[in-house]
Amino acid sequence: MAYKDEQLSEEKVFKDPVHRYVHVRDRVIWDLIGTPEFQRLRRITQLGTTSITFHGAEHSRFNHSLGVYEIVRRIIWNFKDQAYWNPEQRLLCLCAALLHDLGHGPFSHSFEKVFKLDHEHFTQQIILGDTEIHKILEKVRTGFSQDVADVIGKTYADKLVVSLISSQIDADRMDYLQRDAYYTGVSYGHFDMERILRVMRPMEDQVVIKSTGMHAVEDYIMSRYQMYWQVYFHPVSRSAEVILTKTFQRAKYLYEQNYPFKLEPLHFISFFNGKVNLKDYLKLDEAIVYYYFQLWQEEEDAILRDLCERFLNRRLFKYIEFNPNQMMDVWMELHALFRAVEIDPDYYLVVDSSSDLPYDFYRPGEEEERLPIHLLMPNQELKELSRQSDIVEAISGKKRTDHKLYFPLDVLEQKKDVPEVKRILAILAG
Amino acid sequence: MAYKDEQLSEEKVFKDPVHRYVHVRDRVIWDLIGTPEFQRLRRITQLGTTSITFHGAEHSRFNHSLGVYEIVRRIIWNFKDQAYWNPEQRLLCLCAALLHDLGHGPFSHSFEKVFKLDHEHFTQQIILGDTEIHKILEKVRTGFSQDVADVIGKTYADKLVVSLISSQIDADRMDYLQRDAYYTGVSYGHFDMERILRVMRPMEDQVVIKSTGMHAVEDYIMSRYQMYWQVYFHPVSRSAEVILTKTFQRAKYLYEQNYPFKLEPLHFISFFNGKVNLKDYLKLDEAIVYYYFQLWQEEEDAILRDLCERFLNRRLFKYIEFNPNQMMDVWMELHALFRAVEIDPDYYLVVDSSSDLPYDFYRPGEEEERLPIHLLMPNQELKELSRQSDIVEAISGKKRTDHKLYFPLDVLEQKKDVPEVKRILAILAG
Amino acid sequence: MAYKDEQLSEEKVFKDPVHRYVHVRDRVIWDLIGTPEFQRLRRITQLGTTSITFHGAEHSRFNHSLGVYEIVRRIIWNFKDQAYWNPEQRLLCLCAALLHDLGHGPFSHSFEKVFKLDHEHFTQQIILGDTEIHKILEKVRTGFSQDVADVIGKTYADKLVVSLISSQIDADRMDYLQRDAYYTGVSYGHFDMERILRVMRPMEDQVVIKSTGMHAVEDYIMSRYQMYWQVYFHPVSRSAEVILTKTFQRAKYLYEQNYPFKLEPLHFISFFNGKVNLKDYLKLDEAIVYYYFQLWQEEEDAILRDLCERFLNRRLFKYIEFNPNQMMDVWMELHALFRAVEIDPDYYLVVDSSSDLPYDFYRPGEEEERLPIHLLMPNQELKELSRQSDIVEAISGKKRTDHKLYFPLDVLEQKKDVPEVKRILAILAG
Amino acid sequence: MAYKDEQLSEEKVFKDPVHRYVHVRDRVIWDLIGTPEFQRLRRITQLGTTSITFHGAEHSRFNHSLGVYEIVRRIIWNFKDQAYWNPEQRLLCLCAALLHDLGHGPFSHSFEKVFKLDHEHFTQQIILGDTEIHKILEKVRTGFSQDVADVIGKTYADKLVVSLISSQIDADRMDYLQRDAYYTGVSYGHFDMERILRVMRPMEDQVVIKSTGMHAVEDYIMSRYQMYWQVYFHPVSRSAEVILTKTFQRAKYLYEQNYPFKLEPLHFISFFNGKVNLKDYLKLDEAIVYYYFQLWQEEEDAILRDLCERFLNRRLFKYIEFNPNQMMDVWMELHALFRAVEIDPDYYLVVDSSSDLPYDFYRPGEEEERLPIHLLMPNQELKELSRQSDIVEAISGKKRTDHKLYFPLDVLEQKKDVPEVKRILAILAG
Repeated sequence: MAYKDEQLSEEKVFKDPVHRYVHVRDRVIWDLIGTPEFQRLRRITQLGTTSITFHGAEHSRFNHSLGVYEIVRRIIWNFKDQAYWNPEQRLLCLCAALLHDLGHGPFSHSFEKVFKLDHEHFTQQIILGDTEIHKILEKVRTGFSQDVADVIGKTYADKLVVSLISSQIDADRMDYLQRDAYYTGVSYGHFDMERILRVMRPMEDQVVIKSTGMHAVEDYIMSRYQMYWQVYFHPVSRSAEVILTKTFQRAKYLYEQNYPFKLEPLHFISFFNGKVNLKDYLKLDEAIVYYYFQLWQEEEDAILRDLCERFLNRRLFKYIEFNPNQMMDVWMELHALFRAVEIDPDYYLVVDSSSDLPYDFYRPGEEEERLPIHLLMPNQELKELSRQSDIVEAISGKKRTDHKLYFPLDVLEQKKDVPEVKRILAILAG
Repeated sequence: MAYKDEQLSEEKVFKDPVHRYVHVRDRVIWDLIGTPEFQRLRRITQLGTTSITFHGAEHSRFNHSLGVYEIVRRIIWNFKDQAYWNPEQRLLCLCAALLHDLGHGPFSHSFEKVFKLDHEHFTQQIILGDTEIHKILEKVRTGFSQDVADVIGKTYADKLVVSLISSQIDADRMDYLQRDAYYTGVSYGHFDMERILRVMRPMEDQVVIKSTGMHAVEDYIMSRYQMYWQVYFHPVSRSAEVILTKTFQRAKYLYEQNYPFKLEPLHFISFFNGKVNLKDYLKLDEAIVYYYFQLWQEEEDAILRDLCERFLNRRLFKYIEFNPNQMMDVWMELHALFRAVEIDPDYYLVVDSSSDLPYDFYRPGEEEERLPIHLLMPNQELKELSRQSDIVEAISGKKRTDHKLYFPLDVLEQKKDVPEVKRILAILAG
Repeated sequence: MAYKDEQLSEEKVFKDPVHRYVHVRDRVIWDLIGTPEFQRLRRITQLGTTSITFHGAEHSRFNHSLGVYEIVRRIIWNFKDQAYWNPEQRLLCLCAALLHDLGHGPFSHSFEKVFKLDHEHFTQQIILGDTEIHKILEKVRTGFSQDVADVIGKTYADKLVVSLISSQIDADRMDYLQRDAYYTGVSYGHFDMERILRVMRPMEDQVVIKSTGMHAVEDYIMSRYQMYWQVYFHPVSRSAEVILTKTFQRAKYLYEQNYPFKLEPLHFISFFNGKVNLKDYLKLDEAIVYYYFQLWQEEEDAILRDLCERFLNRRLFKYIEFNPNQMMDVWMELHALFRAVEIDPDYYLVVDSSSDLPYDFYRPGEEEERLPIHLLMPNQELKELSRQSDIVEAISGKKRTDHKLYFPLDVLEQKKDVPEVKRILAILAG
Repeated sequence: MAYKDEQLSEEKVFKDPVHRYVHVRDRVIWDLIGTPEFQRLRRITQLGTTSITFHGAEHSRFNHSLGVYEIVRRIIWNFKDQAYWNPEQRLLCLCAALLHDLGHGPFSHSFEKVFKLDHEHFTQQIILGDTEIHKILEKVRTGFSQDVADVIGKTYADKLVVSLISSQIDADRMDYLQRDAYYTGVSYGHFDMERILRVMRPMEDQVVIKSTGMHAVEDYIMSRYQMYWQVYFHPVSRSAEVILTKTFQRAKYLYEQNYPFKLEPLHFISFFNGKVNLKDYLKLDEAIVYYYFQLWQEEEDAILRDLCERFLNRRLFKYIEFNPNQMMDVWMELHALFRAVEIDPDYYLVVDSSSDLPYDFYRPGEEEERLPIHLLMPNQELKELSRQSDIVEAISGKKRTDHKLYFPLDVLEQKKDVPEVKRILAILAG
């Protein structure tokens, strides 16, 4: 039997708290899960600094990746009798679902920002480069790894396949909303996925939703909205992320200044000098980051030491609402005052902005085009979701942004008798 | 106001997926949570290698410790109108609950076995030594840290207080059963804790259970039984633990042989030579272990390299049922055959035995005395649980042991044409 | 001890699937629950014909009433340290919560419509009339029953007390949304009530919500929206309700025509002739209605017989979208065609309209004034919810209406060769 | 297409709170659900007087019957690739599952006891008699109704089919344990059904369980044990059942004495004189019983009136532990004392005994033979469950019985100065 059709002698099941069980029958999937590149995802958390605020949410990307795979497996199972569905697409979808987050590094958000990297780029590299993942995919058939990479990169010709993995109602989002809700323990994030899966219909170039399932989709979109604002953008987690980002930035700066680290930061050097190769990238996981942060707590450099200590021991920055665009003069004044009292504002006076667009209809030609969700009406017409749903219409296309200013209140309070600090504290108190 | 009575200006709540919310009002508790020693528990997982099998269970001891604290807080809240309860005991109980697991190291079970350490010893040291935890406890009152240490060490004079933290139905067990069930996703581990808390009554030297709650306690004991055999003793997780143990053992052996490590294993040296001090101990968390395992994957020593690679990439040993006590000759033969084909049996032929005693009545004088659970009958008499419950009676005092033999089937299969290996495989196939 | 302060020797707990436990300590509450008038609510379902569609939802108003009581009990418990809260109000709130639905009759909606009754009127009568409920309330203090009636009737002077029982975020709504979601099994209806209860604050004339809880309130309002459209207004349940209404209407009509019923409908006579007294009202529950429907299945009158048989055996009317206001001519034509083929359109061609206003800000002077939800901002200001929440703003004040036309497709299909019926079917098929 | 193979144009789904969705594709199943005989089950509660204690448990046998059907549907779905499974058996299993409780009358337990009826007999009659159910089954093929009746009656030749519906781990039990737990809200009753379904294997004459699923089965058996003693045998519900039984008994007695009922109890006459026919039986549901109880509250006969009033308004009997077999003389004395004070002991001094055998191995030749649960070992041997499971072994074959004596404490207390009543109260107080 061809490798691509090989079935395990007995189905493997993973106990999963969100989907109850994850089922694996294909040898290819089983082999992919067993690779070092996929097992590495156990050492990369799904939510990074969110667990600083929501202590329950310590789950890894390994956990989530299995979940996305399982959702796609169930979607496809429901498709088996549908027109427009070609069983040949099955294994490709499953592999793309399983591997879509493969390139995530430790604390992706901060990491990518400081080192100007993109996890999607590394996902492609792992799939196409000299890895066990690549070998397995090529065993399916020559060129299969490129197809998987293209699906994940959204450049694959068959847009139906792409839409299962990346759209405004894809398996990725459906998994993470439920999973992150489960692990944080919040009451948002619940929607009737079983119903959504049952009303999904494959069409020529996209998955659409039977209109009878519209309310379940509304519920999903509202869940997403609440999860973004209640969990993902929680201001305390963002404080930890600000500190993390500034730590990476400081370490990079010190390296560039030829600062003599007590132990050479071997794992980071290629990141510092912008010449990252795949092998270096794969070595870096969150355990490694924690190792260096522990060492750096004892470095000479006061800023690096302080930031690491803050991150590890949760001595976070405080915050206020602050939109620098609207208050440029205050911003300038604060900057100057921080400099005056020798608290480096590049590290200790930080604006963080989060924004989200909960749902959007199609705006061709714009950057980051988003494919809208289409409803399949009883008369077989397609209608864009926001035209049918009052609630979705109400939030559609409305980007919401939140700006916060982060600063170390503890440090300021220690110097509260210094006139400049007094002034700073007065400004920050509004 | 005295520090011990200081309340936060506003109650802090942690969202907890198991208890919904963890509530903190006491300044002392809030300060303890903020210490580096307590934050370190975020980097120690609750279940170690269990997440190899149950991928959902990646939660930390930080997570669990807050849960135990919350359960004790609720128990005490219910006690407020009870005779035998003295509100002075409150803060002591809360601190002991929060801190009871403070001394756990990375992958405790394996770690303690190889390095002959005991986490309870380190819990005591952290509470009594030169730490932030200690300073906070002594601010409550001189000698308070010793009291907390004594409660956790079960030597405190007030046995009622001890029994809340350590007994056969204590807050620790009630939290971990539910929490581990939640994170693994198994259907065991559920029992009606709200009811148990409501029927708990403080007595002079122990907490007892009103007899109307007996069935809830039965359910708790059955949950415990199922969690042990279905989750904690899962043979695949134990395979990972065998490999972990053998890795630590190999590294120690190499160090003793003056093996030249590529990078000196600084974090481990005091463990290797048996001279661990508190500062070294606190530096060691699971991130550090993962760091070394990654390095050691590239060591010269084939055994160390192989074991690390197996652990990180989940290439586990296979197993069969095997009780060496009953099959000493087979055991000897296997040992000899492994030696003959140069697969070191000290690392690659490992018996692991797990045993559990789900509940026991009082057996005075025996090692590991266990306090029985007492029911408070309507006539105010106390009766030991197993005398009232048929189910508990049925399993009471019955220790169950499971022996498994672990070995690297992959290695053997590569050499399956070697006569000795053939013989090994025949024996292992039963 | 005064009756109003009397506590049960031991707290009574009811196991409740939604709130886990309902706790009763007050003798007054326990006595009220034990009255025949309150026990009668066991024989009145909460959702009437909804269980035709959602078979799980067979729960009674007894069930819900205990739930509302429990929520108010918890709210008040949280209030105990708040300014603006006067413990004297406690028992009044608890009684009003428990008794607020006391006057519901069988299948309230249809029943009240046909017989022009109002359950709130009967709630008042039961509380103030010659009943066991009344006696117990007057034992608390003379005039207490009037206070309870006034709170439920929203005419009580203390608006804070009223707002706990009747407002846009009252205990009644919070219970039924969760309870109906639980029993139907739908995934809507969940929101973080524990959080809402914790952020509720009593003010002089209303309960307000701390602004940090805004998202939980948004979630509650979205739940309400989804429950209305997915559950309460489900078109198939409405079909059963149309049939029920028409059955009552037919029986009344026949009575007025001196139709000779096989068994005199004693329980209904005072309803038919509009002279209902409290004693008759209390005798009527859903069991009685079912008894008559069973008898009427064997009546001579073909319409009464058919409607009863349809209701009991779930042979429902079919429906199409149909707004008679916009299609008056089609409506007239259908009417004439039904008459022509001797299918009485008064019973067999029925428009049902459902509409809901999910949330509204204050519109003084309008009919059915609704008190808005106010947020308590950090600076102690009050802000109306829709000014702070984008989502609520989006749906605020927007009434949505759904019109459906119901008809017996089975009957039409039996006559499908009759030209007029052909024409009817063509119109109905759109 | 043959009727037996006819599929609905679109799958129908019922939202079910326990199994999430119940799926119907077969026209035959859909038609059976639509019959008056099946819809009648909406008016028969699953747990009768249990809702007196657990107010949440008001669900009907309709609700449960759909659940059993759904479980069998899922079992069979899992069987599709198994040896020993013949798809021809499918529809037979589904029909038997759906219809297995069809013959239940109102408050079955009491009703059957007083009128010496057996619901299984009526299930057979409904399936084989002149009913819509019968017509539909015979449309499948002549004789099919007899096969369905035989499966339910356990006389069908194919024991594999029988074992799905009736065994110690059948779909009936799996549904009611979970459903009754859900509706009561108790924490017992949960087990991993999904896992049990996955490890079920059809064999020649029974369904067996793969040994890897043993712990899930243990959990199921413990759930069953707890549900029996915590829910089904709750002493307060049994008090209501004693009253119910005595009411039926009194009404029958009065009828036999030619007592002049105010309204002739038409629905009951054939039950009173032991000549029940199918048509009468089908007319009797719980609504009808409630109707008569309401009327009888106003009867002349003091006992009938009192018992009805007690049942409707929940004025229950109190109880003590009392085993009449061991205390015959006390029992005789109480009887005589009750007679002396003119409280008829036939109605007001009642012993009720409940007993359960949680699991039993095979005891051939005994009355009520029970088929044991067999585990399928890795070597394909079958082993009886209690030989493999310590816990099951511990409770296997052990019948537990509970005796309680019920009496109207309120009546006795009103006469507490009468010497005989004093003596009674002294005896009852132990």
